Amino acid sequence: MSGPLFRRLCIIGAGLIGSSLARLVRERGDIAAHLVVHDSSAPVIERVRELGFADTVEPNPVRAVEGCDAVVLCVPVGAYHGVMSVIAPHLAPGSVLSDVGSTKSSVLRDLLPLLPEGVHLVPGHPMAGTEFSGPDAGFAALFQGRWVILTPPPGSDPAAVEKVAEMWRRAGSTLEVMDAAKHDKVVAIVSHLPHLIAFTICSTADDLAQETQDNILRFAASGFRDFTRIAASDVAMWRDIFLNNREALLEMLARFTEDSQALGRAVRWGEAGFIEDRIQRGRKVRRSLIEMKQA
Amino acid sequence: MSGPLFRRLCIIGAGLIGSSLARLVRERGDIAAHLVVHDSSAPVIERVRELGFADTVEPNPVRAVEGCDAVVLCVPVGAYHGVMSVIAPHLAPGSVLSDVGSTKSSVLRDLLPLLPEGVHLVPGHPMAGTEFSGPDAGFAALFQGRWVILTPPPGSDPAAVEKVAEMWRRAGSTLEVMDAAKHDKVVAIVSHLPHLIAFTICSTADDLAQETQDNILRFAASGFRDFTRIAASDVAMWRDIFLNNREALLEMLARFTEDSQALGRAVRWGEAGFIEDRIQRGRKVRRSLIEMKQA
Repeated sequence: MSGPLFRRLCIIGAGLIGSSLARLVRERGDIAAHLVVHDSSAPVIERVRELGFADTVEPNPVRAVEGCDAVVLCVPVGAYHGVMSVIAPHLAPGSVLSDVGSTKSSVLRDLLPLLPEGVHLVPGHPMAGTEFSGPDAGFAALFQGRWVILTPPPGSDPAAVEKVAEMWRRAGSTLEVMDAAKHDKVVAIVSHLPHLIAFTICSTADDLAQETQDNILRFAASGFRDFTRIAASDVAMWRDIFLNNREALLEMLARFTEDSQALGRAVRWGEAGFIEDRIQRGRKVRRSLIEMKQA
Repeated sequence: MSGPLFRRLCIIGAGLIGSSLARLVRERGDIAAHLVVHDSSAPVIERVRELGFADTVEPNPVRAVEGCDAVVLCVPVGAYHGVMSVIAPHLAPGSVLSDVGSTKSSVLRDLLPLLPEGVHLVPGHPMAGTEFSGPDAGFAALFQGRWVILTPPPGSDPAAVEKVAEMWRRAGSTLEVMDAAKHDKVVAIVSHLPHLIAFTICSTADDLAQETQDNILRFAASGFRDFTRIAASDVAMWRDIFLNNREALLEMLARFTEDSQALGRAVRWGEAGFIEDRIQRGRKVRRSLIEMKQA
């Protein structure tokens, strides 16, 4: 086993992802020699102390990042600008700044203008999560076998990118590098749009239940149940994702709406062939996921 | 244990549902004294013989129903009219005709005009299934703890309804009686629309993968994966469901589209409060399903 990648690593935000990364750093020992954890919530700070997965628990964000050679933002993407305004002047020259946010164009927009000379920004997105949130929900194996997409801006320092990549390799993840715009389109279709749809259909069904004055949700069949599972997600995180991946999400919603209207039209006019084709494509996509072991 | 409900029961169609019901009848012994299974496909007939869950395997539909005091249609709903045209003249007076189709207004439309005097029609819908199909996919416990909705037309013989209800109670199901129109709305929102959405998003994503010439589906995240699970369904069955629950499905698609556009508009204009409210409602619906043990 090689030595620690970082001398002093600061994780900002001890939710599901931040506390999972912290637990991993603590368990492995070869990612950072010293781990600082900061959170803006006093109860979370208290809980992180009790859980004991940080070497230093620091309620002051400026003191948290001081002297660190790596800082990872693990807060909702809507909080980036505010956090960065506070910590930017205190980031050490030569240090690495990374994050785990689900939207990446917004990260460049919010962080790059405030980035001090000599600090290396390497945005990252571990595609892992559960329906639970908070410091108690994390676990070190969360990233095992999952994708991590890095979106370093053009001209990034290769050594800084490699350090962040190696951190995620040690987490058991599979790395991929792409530009932020492409990342945002990919996650819009595979994650953000499915969540928008899931939240919506829950509302639609809830309205219908109120209108019919009957608890029709008791008949929730497998289709609806599968949708509600992903609708049980963290409110602040998803609000921020939607607001910060607006263009890609709205493009995917528009494409999906065209396609669902086309299928609805085929239903109205009894076009069996068109309907069969759509069902066949669903089965094909499902099979390809199974072959890629992503099912 | 009470005696068999039926003297001679005929199951028409040995797919997932038909073969599950047949296995249950064979296992319990108190549903039918003699079980006849018919299927229009020669390979399925052959396989049912090998699997051995029928007392009589009968490739001729007329001979299959002759002398039966109960017949249950387990074919795709689009095949009802054709099957009924063949068997109707041979249904025994006083016998019960039931089915397991997922759309119920269409069943009344297709079967009632051909129903012989003295034959009791008791449509039923066991809300159970898997992503697999065919005679090998069935299992006797499929209906255990699942809803079965009966939609007897006005003026139905209570004794006939009770016999079908008791069959499903013996299958371990929970019974509910409602009219066909209400049934069709309920299943449109809890099952048919989720499937239409799942088929659609697979197509939308597949188009995008072709357009970007990149296998973006390898990044399939939990949201998308949950959708593809229900997209792996039987083609003929779902085509027929869509075509035979047209009005209710299009109404639910219209409601859903309005709601998804409203959420999209909130994303475009940065209306955080509206977005949070929709996410909260998703979480509320999810919690209520968990409380009802339907999750």
